[in-house]
Amino acid sequence: MKAAVMGYGTVGRGVCEILTEKNGSLSAKCAGREITLGRVLDIRDLSDTPVKAVWTTQFEEIVNDPEIGVVVETMGGTHPAFEFCMRSLQAGKSVVTSNKQLVAEKGEALFAAARENNVGFRFGAAVCGGIPVIRTMFYGLAANEILSFSGILNGTTNFILTKMIKEKTSFAAALREAQEKGYAERDPAADIEGTDACRKTAILASAAFGTHIPAEEIHTEGITAITSEDVSYAAGVGSKIKLLGRAKRLENGKIYALVSPAIVPDTELISGVEGVYNALCIHGDKVGDILLYGQGAGREATASAVTADVLDCVRNPGFDETYSWKNREEGRLIPYEDMTLRLYVRGYASDVKTAVSGIRETFDGAVLLERENAPENEIAFFTGAAKERDLRENISALRCFAAASVIRVEE
Amino acid sequence: MKAAVMGYGTVGRGVCEILTEKNGSLSAKCAGREITLGRVLDIRDLSDTPVKAVWTTQFEEIVNDPEIGVVVETMGGTHPAFEFCMRSLQAGKSVVTSNKQLVAEKGEALFAAARENNVGFRFGAAVCGGIPVIRTMFYGLAANEILSFSGILNGTTNFILTKMIKEKTSFAAALREAQEKGYAERDPAADIEGTDACRKTAILASAAFGTHIPAEEIHTEGITAITSEDVSYAAGVGSKIKLLGRAKRLENGKIYALVSPAIVPDTELISGVEGVYNALCIHGDKVGDILLYGQGAGREATASAVTADVLDCVRNPGFDETYSWKNREEGRLIPYEDMTLRLYVRGYASDVKTAVSGIRETFDGAVLLERENAPENEIAFFTGAAKERDLRENISALRCFAAASVIRVEE
Repeated sequence: MKAAVMGYGTVGRGVCEILTEKNGSLSAKCAGREITLGRVLDIRDLSDTPVKAVWTTQFEEIVNDPEIGVVVETMGGTHPAFEFCMRSLQAGKSVVTSNKQLVAEKGEALFAAARENNVGFRFGAAVCGGIPVIRTMFYGLAANEILSFSGILNGTTNFILTKMIKEKTSFAAALREAQEKGYAERDPAADIEGTDACRKTAILASAAFGTHIPAEEIHTEGITAITSEDVSYAAGVGSKIKLLGRAKRLENGKIYALVSPAIVPDTELISGVEGVYNALCIHGDKVGDILLYGQGAGREATASAVTADVLDCVRNPGFDETYSWKNREEGRLIPYEDMTLRLYVRGYASDVKTAVSGIRETFDGAVLLERENAPENEIAFFTGAAKERDLRENISALRCFAAASVIRVEE
Repeated sequence: MKAAVMGYGTVGRGVCEILTEKNGSLSAKCAGREITLGRVLDIRDLSDTPVKAVWTTQFEEIVNDPEIGVVVETMGGTHPAFEFCMRSLQAGKSVVTSNKQLVAEKGEALFAAARENNVGFRFGAAVCGGIPVIRTMFYGLAANEILSFSGILNGTTNFILTKMIKEKTSFAAALREAQEKGYAERDPAADIEGTDACRKTAILASAAFGTHIPAEEIHTEGITAITSEDVSYAAGVGSKIKLLGRAKRLENGKIYALVSPAIVPDTELISGVEGVYNALCIHGDKVGDILLYGQGAGREATASAVTADVLDCVRNPGFDETYSWKNREEGRLIPYEDMTLRLYVRGYASDVKTAVSGIRETFDGAVLLERENAPENEIAFFTGAAKERDLRENISALRCFAAASVIRVEE
C-alpha cells in the first residue's frame, strides 16, 4: 500500500524519513503488506529534497491514484487541509493527521465521512506528540468510563513556567528564552494564551466522553498573568504553577472542561514534569489513575505517532467505531463557574487588618500564605472550597483589598 | 460474540463483572458486535456467585462451543493453563491472558499456534496491570526501534522500599506491613526475590526487541539485602533505591537485561513513583523517552487491561503480526557482568585510612559518601564507570575492606 504525505514541513519531513528509512521493518509489522511513500504534496519546490521523485503540487495526483490507501495531512490550518482530507476520505482513502485545529474544529464532519466510506480517520499526533494518549483513551482504556483527565499539554508554556520556577526569572525573560531556543513562535499567542492547550483539551475531552466538545466552548486562560510572586507563594506551600487542560464527567453526566494555570502540589507526579515535556493523567472507573509522559512535540516524536496511525490504517483499513466520537450535544458542558474548587488569591490591601479579618470571615477554611520580602500590604491566601462564581463574587466584595492574581488550586 | 473466562479468581471475577455490567457500552465500541459472557470455568463451586448460570467445570464445554470466540485465561500457573490456551487457539478461538508466567515461559508456542490458526493471542494485563505498556510497545511505538526500557514492575517491593525510604523502617517491618495489607503473599518470595519482576522484564524485552527473551536467562536480584543504611546513603545524594527491570539494545545488536535494585536520582520522574504503583520508562529512537505510570495490579485495573484485549480480539479476530515476537535467538543476551556502569558500595574497614586510600587508587572517579551516625569503620562510595565484572573484582581486592552491600547506579 502507498501512503501520501500532504505538507513537507517539520512533521511531514519526519514522516517521510521514517516511511523511507524503516520501510522494511514497518512492512514486517503489517504482516508483509509493504508500505511505501507514494506522493508528497507541497506548493513549495521540493526538487532539491530526498522526496523529489514523489513530489507533486497537485492534490489530484493523490486523490486519483488508486494505489494510495492512506493520506497523511501535516499541512496545518483548516484550509485547504479540511477539503483535502474530506476528498481523500470520500475517495476511499484513510486519513491520518497531526493537525489539532483540524480535528478540534472539523472532527464531526471528518468522522462522518470516514464512517460513510468505511475508512480510517486517526490523529494520535495531534495531542502530546509521540505520547500515545489518544490511542490509550480509545483502546487501552476501552473497558473504562473516563471520569476525568488533567494534563500539561503545551511544552512551550511548561518551559516558561519551569524557568520561572527554577531560575526565578520573569515571565517576559522566560518567554524570550523560549523564543530564542525555538520553542515559542515569534507570535507566541497560541501557546501563552492557551489556544493550543484548549484545542488539545477539546480533542481529549471528545475522546474521553465520546461526544464532540467544541474548543470554543472551553473556558481558556493562558499564563501571561502569572508573576514570580505567585510562583514563590506556590513554592512556599510545596506546589508549582502549571498550565493544565482538564475535564471531568460529573455525576449528572454533564462535563466540566477548562484550560487555565493551576497550583499543583508537589505530591502529584505531574508537578515534576519540567521543560518542554508533556504529561497526561487519566482517571478511569476501572483502571484508577494512569499517567503518560514524554515529549509533546518535535519532528521525530510527532512523526512517530503519525506513522503508528498509518500502520493502524494499513492493518485495519475500515472505519473503527471505537476510535470515534458522536456529534456535539447541546448543553453537555456546564459553565465553568459552577464548579466547586479552591482558589489562590494574591492582592494588595489598603488596610491590612481589615482585609485579613474580611478574608477570615468570608472564606470558610481560608489559609493565609507567606513569602519572604513581600511588601507589607501584600496578602495571599487560599479560599476554602466553594462554587467558583461565589468565590469570585466574595473576593470582589472584600473590603480594603484588591486582587491582583487568582489561580485555581488542583486537588 | 461470546467470551469465556477460565479461572474465577481475583482478576477473572473482575473481567466477568466488566463484561456483564458494561455489556452495552463495550458492544458499542465494537461497532455493535455484541460481546457476552458465555462460560466461566472453575473447578470451585460457583453456584453461589453471579456467574452461576454460565459456570462449568469442563473445559470441553468451552472449546467445543462454536459461539465462543475469545477465551480469557486468568487461572495462573502453566498447567493446565498452557494446555487450555493451546487447545483454544487450535480450535480457532482468540486467547487473552493476564498470566505472566505463561507468557514468559510459553510465549513462543502460543504465538506459533495463534499464527497458524489466524487468531489473536494478547496479554496486556500480564505486565503493569491496567497501564497499557504492552500495546504501547507493539502499537503506539511501532515506528520506533525500542533502544531501552527501565521500570518499576512490582508493586509489592515498591511498597516495601517506599516504607523503608519514607518511614525509615527496616526491610522486615516493611514486609510485615505489606503482608498485613494484603500486598504481599504469605510466602513473599516471588515478589521480594525479583521473580515476578523478572518474568515481566522478559515479556517487555521480548516485545521491545522482537525476539523471545527467556526469563531464566535474565540475571535477577531481589530486595532482601537492602538495608536502611543503604536507603540513607542514597537519600544523602538525592536518590532512592528502587527495584528495576531493565533492558537495552546495544550497538552490536546484542541485548542487556537485568532485574535488580538500583540507585535512582530524584531528578528522574521514576524515583517519585511510590507505594504499590508501577511505572515504565521506554526509550525509542524516534519518540525519545516516554513514561507510563499507574496501578500495576489489583482486580479492576488488571481486568480493565484484559477487557481491552478482548475488545481487540473482537474487532480484529485474526492473528496480528505486529503483536508478536520471533523465537529465541541463541547468544542474543550479553552476560550482565559485561555491562559498563557505576556501583554503590557500602562496607566495613579493618583500617579506614588504608581502605579509603585503596578505594581512591582503585576506582577512577570514586565518590565517598556520608551519613549521620555511621559507625567509624563504615565506608560507602560510588565507583567510577567500568565493566561490572572488573568493578566487582576490584572491590574484592580492596585491602582492609569488606563489602556488605553493592547496588547498581541508574544513570
